[in-house]
Amino acid sequence: MRDISENEAERHKAKMAKRKSVQDAEVAGKTVEKGLLIVNTGPGKGKSTAAFGLALRMLGYGKRVGVVQFIKGAWHSGEKDAFSTFGDKLVWHTMGEGFTWETQDIKRDIAAAEAAWLKVQSLMADPSISLLVLDELNIALRYDYLDIEKVVAVLRARRPDLHVVVTGRNAKPALVEAADLVTEMGAVKHHFTAGVKAQKGIEF
Amino acid sequence: MRDISENEAERHKAKMAKRKSVQDAEVAGKTVEKGLLIVNTGPGKGKSTAAFGLALRMLGYGKRVGVVQFIKGAWHSGEKDAFSTFGDKLVWHTMGEGFTWETQDIKRDIAAAEAAWLKVQSLMADPSISLLVLDELNIALRYDYLDIEKVVAVLRARRPDLHVVVTGRNAKPALVEAADLVTEMGAVKHHFTAGVKAQKGIEF
Repeated sequence: MRDISENEAERHKAKMAKRKSVQDAEVAGKTVEKGLLIVNTGPGKGKSTAAFGLALRMLGYGKRVGVVQFIKGAWHSGEKDAFSTFGDKLVWHTMGEGFTWETQDIKRDIAAAEAAWLKVQSLMADPSISLLVLDELNIALRYDYLDIEKVVAVLRARRPDLHVVVTGRNAKPALVEAADLVTEMGAVKHHFTAGVKAQKGIEF
Repeated sequence: MRDISENEAERHKAKMAKRKSVQDAEVAGKTVEKGLLIVNTGPGKGKSTAAFGLALRMLGYGKRVGVVQFIKGAWHSGEKDAFSTFGDKLVWHTMGEGFTWETQDIKRDIAAAEAAWLKVQSLMADPSISLLVLDELNIALRYDYLDIEKVVAVLRARRPDLHVVVTGRNAKPALVEAADLVTEMGAVKHHFTAGVKAQKGIEF
C-alpha cells in the first residue's frame, strides 16, 4: 500500500468532512421529482448505449420501458436479445428502414419516421410506461422528416411522471431548449480510425 | 407528409447512392478484430450507464461479463437487480466503500481500491469473461489509490479477445494513451442545477 502518514490521513479526513457537508447541503436543496426529457447527442459513442443502460436500470425496478427506433432497420442486435429476457416489461418497436444511404428513398424514410412518431404518441399515452427511448429521433429531425415544433410540443406535454430519452447526433436547438438533461458524447479517440471493424457485443 | 417533388427525390437518391459507396469502402477498409480498451470519461452523465448498456449487449450474445465497482458502496441500484436476471453470466463485485467524502478514511479507501484491483486481475485471467466493466476506476487512479503505470501495464497486457471498459471522470493521460476508444461525456445541461433530485431508475 502507498505510504500514508497520520498527518496526511488527518488532513484527508478534515477535507472530506468539509466536502460532505457541502454535498449534503446540495442534496437537501434538490427536492423536485419529475419525468425528465433527456437528450444524448454528439459525435461520440454511447448515445444509444447509455439510453439502453437507463432502460435496464428502470427494468430493475420492475417498471415498463418502451423503445422506438427511428432509423435502424430490422437487423439483429445484442441488446434486443438481452431485453427479451424481460418479457412484456419491454416494448420494442424497430420502425426504421435502415440508414438513409441504404434506403436511398426519401419518401419511404419520411413515411417510416411518421409511422414511428405515431407509435411514440401511443406509447406516451400508455400510463404503464415509465421510460421511453426514442432512438435516433435526432436523425429524423435533422433531415426534417418530422416537424421539430410539433415533436417538441408533444414531448413538452408528456405525462409528469414519464421519462423520455432522445438519442442521435446533431440534436436541434429547440429540443435542447426543452430538455432537462443534455449530454454531448465527444469522440476523443475512436478505434474505427485504427482499422478496427464493428464487433459483436460492442457496436451491435 | 412533407411535400417532396420528384426532382428532390431523385437528387436525394443520387446523393445517398454516392454516400453508400463511400460508406461501403470505409467498412471494407476495417478488418481488425480485437478486444478493446474503452474509456468513458468527462463530467457529463452516461459514463457508467453506457458501460452497463455494453454489458447488456454482450449478455444478449450469451457472453459472460464481469463488473467491478471501485467507489460505489453496497447501495441498491436498478441495474444490479436487472442484471440478476442473467444469473452467473454476470459476475458483479461492489468493492468500493462509498464516496471519499463518506468514508473520510484514506487508508480504508486505498485498501478497498487494492482489493478491487486484485479482483480485476483474477477476472482478467478468466477466459470465460468477454467484457469487463471497471466502474469508477478513474476515481481511484485520480487520487493515486492505485499506481497508474502498473494499472496501464496490466490493462495493455490483457487477453487479445477481452474488452475492458473503464469509467469515471478525469481519465489520466496514460490511460487515454493506452485506450482504443475514448469518449468524453460533456454536460450541456443538467437537471440537478434546476433543483431536480436523484430519481429511482434514472440516477440509481
